[in-house]
Amino acid sequence: MLPASEDDILTIIQQYFPEKHPQILLGRGDDCAILTLHGSQALTTDIFAEDVHFRRRYFTPFDIGFKALAVNLSDIASSGAVPGGISLGLTLTGNEDLAWIHNFCKGIKTLSSQFSLAVSGGDLSKATALNICITAWGTLPKELPLGLRRGQAQEGDILFLIGTAGLALTGFSLLEKNNDPQSIKKILREWPHACRQHLRPFPMVQEGCLLARFAAQKHLENRISLMDLSDGLAQDLPRLLNTSRTGLGGDIHISCLDQEVLRYAKLCGIPAENLAFKGGEDYALLGSCPPEYWTDLTSTFAKISPNIPTAIGIIKKGSITLQGKKTKLTGFDHFNEHR
Amino acid sequence: MLPASEDDILTIIQQYFPEKHPQILLGRGDDCAILTLHGSQALTTDIFAEDVHFRRRYFTPFDIGFKALAVNLSDIASSGAVPGGISLGLTLTGNEDLAWIHNFCKGIKTLSSQFSLAVSGGDLSKATALNICITAWGTLPKELPLGLRRGQAQEGDILFLIGTAGLALTGFSLLEKNNDPQSIKKILREWPHACRQHLRPFPMVQEGCLLARFAAQKHLENRISLMDLSDGLAQDLPRLLNTSRTGLGGDIHISCLDQEVLRYAKLCGIPAENLAFKGGEDYALLGSCPPEYWTDLTSTFAKISPNIPTAIGIIKKGSITLQGKKTKLTGFDHFNEHR
Repeated sequence: MLPASEDDILTIIQQYFPEKHPQILLGRGDDCAILTLHGSQALTTDIFAEDVHFRRRYFTPFDIGFKALAVNLSDIASSGAVPGGISLGLTLTGNEDLAWIHNFCKGIKTLSSQFSLAVSGGDLSKATALNICITAWGTLPKELPLGLRRGQAQEGDILFLIGTAGLALTGFSLLEKNNDPQSIKKILREWPHACRQHLRPFPMVQEGCLLARFAAQKHLENRISLMDLSDGLAQDLPRLLNTSRTGLGGDIHISCLDQEVLRYAKLCGIPAENLAFKGGEDYALLGSCPPEYWTDLTSTFAKISPNIPTAIGIIKKGSITLQGKKTKLTGFDHFNEHR
Repeated sequence: MLPASEDDILTIIQQYFPEKHPQILLGRGDDCAILTLHGSQALTTDIFAEDVHFRRRYFTPFDIGFKALAVNLSDIASSGAVPGGISLGLTLTGNEDLAWIHNFCKGIKTLSSQFSLAVSGGDLSKATALNICITAWGTLPKELPLGLRRGQAQEGDILFLIGTAGLALTGFSLLEKNNDPQSIKKILREWPHACRQHLRPFPMVQEGCLLARFAAQKHLENRISLMDLSDGLAQDLPRLLNTSRTGLGGDIHISCLDQEVLRYAKLCGIPAENLAFKGGEDYALLGSCPPEYWTDLTSTFAKISPNIPTAIGIIKKGSITLQGKKTKLTGFDHFNEHR
């Protein structure tokens, strides 16, 4: 059944996201939400748009809600902030029935409740394609008012990855090639890791916060770099190193890859590391750390996190190479190509 | 010339919106912006979507940028906050050339610079229709941590309007009826107030702040109501009064109407007040005030503001009537009707 009015949709949203929250003084239903925020705040806006970031063909409404929030929280994570809440700009097409809206809300809710997020409010509109524009905020530790940033790396620092690379691209490539529901089901069954990574990437919030605490304790706020791996190493690494200004690069070895990435690379007849190097949307964390703190950092993680930073290279002046070979750096740009 | 890449668009945005701002610790270019905010914050998200909120046929790129921001600032104004900044979720179609993007930015800039807003960052995407999703924040006075809200009115209070009613609907109706550039030009020339009100409504930020200061000084935070008139009196008045819960209503007389509203109503053969009562998108402020403070309020405004609150009725138990007559309350709902 289609919603009869905007109010029907708002009623559903109301069911999933309670207005009471320590950061919310005044919730939805007025012109603005009123927030009480302490300390410096990380703020990010991400658009999650149909046929640019997702296909309805193989994203369930739950997946769409989940990932729309995940990509935002990944940005919050990469600044080292504790996520506080979101404001939701939701453009529907008018063809989404009540069950769809429920499942979409469940997708957001599943992730937002993991981090006890406030959903302060937002806006509802209509267009020919789905467009979910979320603005998220998060609080930084007092000792780290600027958060973790890009561009703090120096020669000799260790490049690291927390999470996986190439797995989401594997899932995307496989799902994208298949049109009918049966073959999509088969892909989902045979490539569970890859599909999950593309459809429901879990943002590295705990890991970002742990890194921020580590950086604060060791006074490394200007020596640890961090960003999230949304466009793939090929595109994101030069951003992390601020290559165009610093001239920094390094030779990359990605030793720890998911079995499904290895399997898919073999299937395609390409080196798995190339796939991992190019692959975007894994929402892993990519960072740099001075070598003298590396053991300390990894053992700090080993104590409390299932996701331990893996070294993928040492930063040097010069170009970025992959296993000693030059690579053609490419990435995804909505205004240059369509998915 | 079309932008060659996302970077081309970001370069233009960079030109118009400097990153330095007292509320911004870290600007664009990282995963998150880092803000330093003091006091409780009003937060709002508004979507401004092609063929729902505007037509390209008669909105210039400048108008689109201007109004996309105006509707957000109007929400901030109605909470009584001082606007601080925005985060911009911009979905383009890929057909907007560089001149278009420049003019769009100029539209936002013209308004944002009036209030020294921070533009903290945002996201860029692509779809078949334009969609501008802005999240704005603003700071509330220390003595008014919840801001000005709806639903504080009591029997006997004075209903007031700051700004105009029916003028934007006049502009919208006239522009919407005309398809060719020549007749649109004619409308713009012959109905300058109405067109301006529809294309570039100026948000009542100063007026909202003045009301908030007044409420704080007189300890009226729970006795003055305020909201912005976005959907028209017919739809917004029951929201202000929280009619379904309180049973409050009143008889409305809108005495002060723009000449163009009077002229258009005559042309259509309808009472001008009906037009004003129905008309949405004027982004006037609609509020209520205890009668014993009314003289004080209007004289406070008269001293420093060109926009003085006008009384449009006295709040009573019972239904909402217009000049003593019952009216059919209607409003606009994207999920029920198309413009």
